[in-house]
Amino acid sequence: MNTAAFADYRHYPLISPLSAVQVLPDRVQVRWADDRLSPFHHQWLRDNCPCTQCVYSVTREQVLEIVDVAEDLGCHGAHIDSQGCLCLDWSDGHQSRFDPGWLRAHAYDEQSREERRANKAQSQLWDSRLELPVFDYQALMDDPKTLLQWLLALRDIGLTQVRGVPTEPGSLALIARRIAFIRESNFGVLFNVQSKADADSNAYTAFNLPLHSDLPTRELQPGLQFLHCLVNDAEGGESIFVDGFAIADALRREDPEAFLTLCETPVEFRNKDRHSDYRCLAPIIALDALGEVAEIRMANFLRGPFDTSVEQMPRLYHAYRRFIALTREARFRVIRRLDPGQLWCFDNRRTLHARNAFDPASGARHFQGCYIDRDELLSRILVLQR
Amino acid sequence: MNTAAFADYRHYPLISPLSAVQVLPDRVQVRWADDRLSPFHHQWLRDNCPCTQCVYSVTREQVLEIVDVAEDLGCHGAHIDSQGCLCLDWSDGHQSRFDPGWLRAHAYDEQSREERRANKAQSQLWDSRLELPVFDYQALMDDPKTLLQWLLALRDIGLTQVRGVPTEPGSLALIARRIAFIRESNFGVLFNVQSKADADSNAYTAFNLPLHSDLPTRELQPGLQFLHCLVNDAEGGESIFVDGFAIADALRREDPEAFLTLCETPVEFRNKDRHSDYRCLAPIIALDALGEVAEIRMANFLRGPFDTSVEQMPRLYHAYRRFIALTREARFRVIRRLDPGQLWCFDNRRTLHARNAFDPASGARHFQGCYIDRDELLSRILVLQR
Repeated sequence: MNTAAFADYRHYPLISPLSAVQVLPDRVQVRWADDRLSPFHHQWLRDNCPCTQCVYSVTREQVLEIVDVAEDLGCHGAHIDSQGCLCLDWSDGHQSRFDPGWLRAHAYDEQSREERRANKAQSQLWDSRLELPVFDYQALMDDPKTLLQWLLALRDIGLTQVRGVPTEPGSLALIARRIAFIRESNFGVLFNVQSKADADSNAYTAFNLPLHSDLPTRELQPGLQFLHCLVNDAEGGESIFVDGFAIADALRREDPEAFLTLCETPVEFRNKDRHSDYRCLAPIIALDALGEVAEIRMANFLRGPFDTSVEQMPRLYHAYRRFIALTREARFRVIRRLDPGQLWCFDNRRTLHARNAFDPASGARHFQGCYIDRDELLSRILVLQR
Repeated sequence: MNTAAFADYRHYPLISPLSAVQVLPDRVQVRWADDRLSPFHHQWLRDNCPCTQCVYSVTREQVLEIVDVAEDLGCHGAHIDSQGCLCLDWSDGHQSRFDPGWLRAHAYDEQSREERRANKAQSQLWDSRLELPVFDYQALMDDPKTLLQWLLALRDIGLTQVRGVPTEPGSLALIARRIAFIRESNFGVLFNVQSKADADSNAYTAFNLPLHSDLPTRELQPGLQFLHCLVNDAEGGESIFVDGFAIADALRREDPEAFLTLCETPVEFRNKDRHSDYRCLAPIIALDALGEVAEIRMANFLRGPFDTSVEQMPRLYHAYRRFIALTREARFRVIRRLDPGQLWCFDNRRTLHARNAFDPASGARHFQGCYIDRDELLSRILVLQR
């Protein structure tokens, strides 16, 4: 099989060979050696024809548009060739040939779809007893396998620490770019977390910052946040983390009505200064299509006034108070002080972070931070896994 | 009224003065001079106290967390002061004072909320008869009022042309930065649209490109896309645009079941090369909380194999074919050829764009493009409107 025209770069191992094929009026039904039965509609098969007429082999992108093929296109013949591929003759004369590994990976019979759902990566919830995943800077820079382990920890646990990072300002960018380009914001490509007289965010004061996600004021919250410690001579300023998914899970069990209220009520977050005015209206807890918690959006200091019906308002305040109260419980909190040359990297859409107040008179404190989007993390993982 | 501690930078004109105030067990009810009655719960009022203890005046961000106030906090007194502000005495001794313009703008009685909904910006649907909004480069660079008109056209119409742009490579960045920083992608900060032998996207070939949005493979499709013409000596390569919201609207009326199928069925989009592998699973038509069409996600050449149930698959193909067929109807299409020094700027999450094939042997063709997110567009509009 010439796989050059695969509309993909992944390899699809042969799970089970094709054993039989039957042409039905609207579909082709194949039987696999392990007895699974997979129907494929004619339109689906024609649409996914991997031949070099249908897919441009340089980009591996489709050039065929299915609307250019008759909706009632028929299949005149089907067989399994000597290499185990499914070969089809279409009523318009076109021919298609499918690799059995690829076909099995994309089969949409119920069992195959259920298998794919079950194989999806799962978040591992954590609390104060978390064994913090710690990685060595140089190993991440040099070794793709260690890099992949770090990225998987970020995807599935959502909180990691890196040690041995150079403390020159800007060196954060070197490790961030091991994943991808940095996501810029109005605070810059790299932002300096220091106490400033003309602060344009409470982050740039010496105040304590309650548990929050960064940029909840944007439609897409940054996926990964980095916080790199360059200098930390000031008293206080410890970092606190909670697993927002674990908090949501506890709320769901302990107060299901409050959980639902936070899933269903859009809340406005605002981030404004003299040059910008960001507003985003979204619920604090976002669920995915399967009803699983997919994202937490929270920063009390960036929240606008609640805007819901008079009837709903007391329920919203009750739910909001419950959520915040949970984030303050010791059972969920990981508290650490960062030393120079260490950095936090965490899932900003899941792991809420806080900072204790620090005393700027007691010594200097300088952190640098940056963001990378989840798309880039997941793409990098797929490329490293090829 | 000292407005320095307002958790906001906007001005709130006095729509109607406060005329009466009544304290109830869980809320304060105010009557306005125009007879509207607005209840405000104690928790809401305490939460939104604008005093300098509760809001840090430098950042205008809240330092109070409502969970630090008793859930059953009572109000011991309320009056309207000589400046028309609402003054409250809380059971814990704290005092709050609210500007009547701000209070009215955030009132959540049913009538006030309905008014705000009605005042939201509305998309103006268009078809082939669109009077294309055209702007002059120099005016956009020099005049904030023209700039605002352009941004409003982008928000509400979603397709604009700018003329008189310098044709030096990179000059696109100057006008893009009139709005905000540019959103980087794996294709760079500025991308060069040219026919390349080692293309990593069909966009970088001389093929025709069917109507599509850019980066449907990312969780957040770029909000604005710029395409700047530097050289256009090749035959062919005309730009085609359709209003994706108008297409969705037509589908909703002409084939409601197909419309629903595209709203409810997640489709995978993939963008992969040797260094990246982006995948995003989302419906082609996204609705907002009110059921209005909010976003179109579409690029046939970046689409993965459909993955839905055997029963649903024929319905999905039918709906997909109907949508594509509509985008090909002349009634929806705006077709123009860009000259050097002109650029398109459009809403990439609404306005689908296509390119006719061009003949690279007939002459040079060089466009540059870039992206800016919708958050940045909306923030810039709010700042210009202050």
